[in-house]
Amino acid sequence: MTSLPSPRIDGERLWSSLMEMARIGPSPMGGSRRLALSEDDVAGRRLLLAWTDALGCEWRSDQAGNLFIRRPGRDDSLAPIAVGSHLDTQPLGGRFDGVLGVLAGLEVFRTLHDQGITTERPLELIVWTNEEGSRFSPAMGGSGVYSGRLSLETFREAKDRAGISLGEALDDSGFKGSLTRRDLPLGAYLELHIEQGPVLERKGLPLGVVTGVQGLRWYDLEFVGESAHAGPTPMGFRHDPLMAATAFVEAMRETVLADPEGASRLTVGDFQVTEPSRNVIPGKVTLHVDVRHTDEDQLTVLDGQLRAHVAAAAGRESVEAQVKELWHMPVTRFDTTLVNDLSAAARAVGHEPFTMMSGAGHDAVNISYVAPTAMLFIPCRDGISHNEREYAEPEHCTIATQVMCDALLRAAERH
Amino acid sequence: MTSLPSPRIDGERLWSSLMEMARIGPSPMGGSRRLALSEDDVAGRRLLLAWTDALGCEWRSDQAGNLFIRRPGRDDSLAPIAVGSHLDTQPLGGRFDGVLGVLAGLEVFRTLHDQGITTERPLELIVWTNEEGSRFSPAMGGSGVYSGRLSLETFREAKDRAGISLGEALDDSGFKGSLTRRDLPLGAYLELHIEQGPVLERKGLPLGVVTGVQGLRWYDLEFVGESAHAGPTPMGFRHDPLMAATAFVEAMRETVLADPEGASRLTVGDFQVTEPSRNVIPGKVTLHVDVRHTDEDQLTVLDGQLRAHVAAAAGRESVEAQVKELWHMPVTRFDTTLVNDLSAAARAVGHEPFTMMSGAGHDAVNISYVAPTAMLFIPCRDGISHNEREYAEPEHCTIATQVMCDALLRAAERH
Repeated sequence: MTSLPSPRIDGERLWSSLMEMARIGPSPMGGSRRLALSEDDVAGRRLLLAWTDALGCEWRSDQAGNLFIRRPGRDDSLAPIAVGSHLDTQPLGGRFDGVLGVLAGLEVFRTLHDQGITTERPLELIVWTNEEGSRFSPAMGGSGVYSGRLSLETFREAKDRAGISLGEALDDSGFKGSLTRRDLPLGAYLELHIEQGPVLERKGLPLGVVTGVQGLRWYDLEFVGESAHAGPTPMGFRHDPLMAATAFVEAMRETVLADPEGASRLTVGDFQVTEPSRNVIPGKVTLHVDVRHTDEDQLTVLDGQLRAHVAAAAGRESVEAQVKELWHMPVTRFDTTLVNDLSAAARAVGHEPFTMMSGAGHDAVNISYVAPTAMLFIPCRDGISHNEREYAEPEHCTIATQVMCDALLRAAERH
Repeated sequence: MTSLPSPRIDGERLWSSLMEMARIGPSPMGGSRRLALSEDDVAGRRLLLAWTDALGCEWRSDQAGNLFIRRPGRDDSLAPIAVGSHLDTQPLGGRFDGVLGVLAGLEVFRTLHDQGITTERPLELIVWTNEEGSRFSPAMGGSGVYSGRLSLETFREAKDRAGISLGEALDDSGFKGSLTRRDLPLGAYLELHIEQGPVLERKGLPLGVVTGVQGLRWYDLEFVGESAHAGPTPMGFRHDPLMAATAFVEAMRETVLADPEGASRLTVGDFQVTEPSRNVIPGKVTLHVDVRHTDEDQLTVLDGQLRAHVAAAAGRESVEAQVKELWHMPVTRFDTTLVNDLSAAARAVGHEPFTMMSGAGHDAVNISYVAPTAMLFIPCRDGISHNEREYAEPEHCTIATQVMCDALLRAAERH
């Protein structure tokens, strides 16, 4: 028999809140589409605030529009213990990525409210702005501004495809505040998230305690050749930037697959031909490249290999190439005390903790620079996320939220 | 000493007409942008008609908006000898592709007018609609409808990126007529064009007599995989359609380069990721592929190799793939009598005729199915066309227009 910690969270209430949130900005195949600071993203935040208003919680927002929803403690002079994630989604996103972390925090608040429990430290439920980065680049912008790792100016200047800046969208959202991290210090930060990968599911585990996050580097690659008519230009006389780009992708793929630990990742998220025409050799091709590794030294090696492959591919096709690094997020290691809190809480619900590195970046990475931080993962079906078919088992959501509740209470009693 | 045939065309007048036409729809770097049936394309046609009106010529148009500008002969019951090409351009096109063929015909008309010469057969200067195919697919649409190789319905239904159909654009242009090929039979068709390749320039030749056109096949390839988050999905668990597409391009490139005659051509004119996002493995990738060869049997072999490479690339990445052939233009052989007329005319201006196959498709290919047809090429600088930097030497334009004039007169006296 496992000994559940009290208080017990309500898994059915959690699930029904997840499903209600998913109906805001529904996507065609049953997922969600709440692009950062869109009308639907704002509506999702309003729904959450209606729920926390009912618990008597007050909310504040900072300059980046991050929401801080407060549950007072016995000693409100102490820095709060925070729980949170994000409510924005990919263009065709799922119902759990981000949302679960926020609504797990809501469920903890509801449980404590129902049972009349007051913690020593105050608690803070946080919704970070623009985690996904798909409407406005870079991703994890709100937590970036909060932590000081991204300037407010850069954050606000990012534009979507329609030319609307994040700053304009934020000003219109009603969530722009004047506070900064000085006004909103955190004693600790815990985030529950779906794994967004296949590891827990393949191992048949209901949860994983996350000890850190793999590093990533984002690049824009540009190959510039010579646009010319397709038919009469012999292959050997061409300066074809598209074939340089495909040569680069194939070579970089080989490099990544050669990693004996399988810890290297390569994703080409976009491949654009400028002024495409069916019977014209392209003049310019642009790639968006995402490279990741769990070891910072190996990530540096991958960066060098990428640059070498770009140069070789451009040389093969006699074209010019440019590598522009947009973003470098180094490998992150989380706080040992909080990792231990989560491990102890997992044991308390009868699960020997499995520790793992995250493959995805999260707001928790930014927060780890300014407060003790750790994360908890649950499996998602087939490892799929950023997809309408993303799915997490209700049972896993319940177990993990129980673990989060227990870990938050442990941290909130500590001075 | 070479004996020039009389009448002599006026090379300076030809060049100044070319430059005047280029000022309609000027592109940023000194080329032209007159997309088919756009305001600028219509303005280009109006300028030509102002010039031919001044020669007393009348014009008609057929259902596809092709222009037929008539110079009467001594016996107007005979089918006319035609000269022509197109005035539309690529999005960032040059000043000679198509335009030279039309304005060479104009220069011949002007020369005959100045010298009071009437030919036995009538002459017809033709402007074909939508040769380029970059606003509306397929290319060579106007000559396709005239020759019966493309249905009027398919031609009119083609839509541009803004959703405007060719039919709508044609109805608005003022050039839609009611005539068909039955009303407008041709006795022969000659077309002067820039080579759009490097062969004549490399050989130091001012012109080439074209004996045929290489065949081409156009494909849409679709690779469909599984969209998923970039970071946490190990490489081996992915279904990445982008990497299937790059594998295909590299393999097909190898096949084409292995051709010992160098007569195989491969161009990927577009490479699109559906719903691209920087940190998401693409779910679907679409390629536009153009394959060409001067030998029809070898083109069939290339078709089989393309399909095999698509299947192998899809298999490597565990994705689905679809090959849709949009268009197949078989290898064309031109009319021997007209090739001989052009060769004789070339000799008459002191140039031993060099015969060659065209690498590009032309309206002449369609017309060759319904009337005796041949073409003449001149070099273009660096073999570049479909590009703002496209350039042809005034001297080559003059020599070739003189050859066209002589060949037209030879054909127009024949019963």
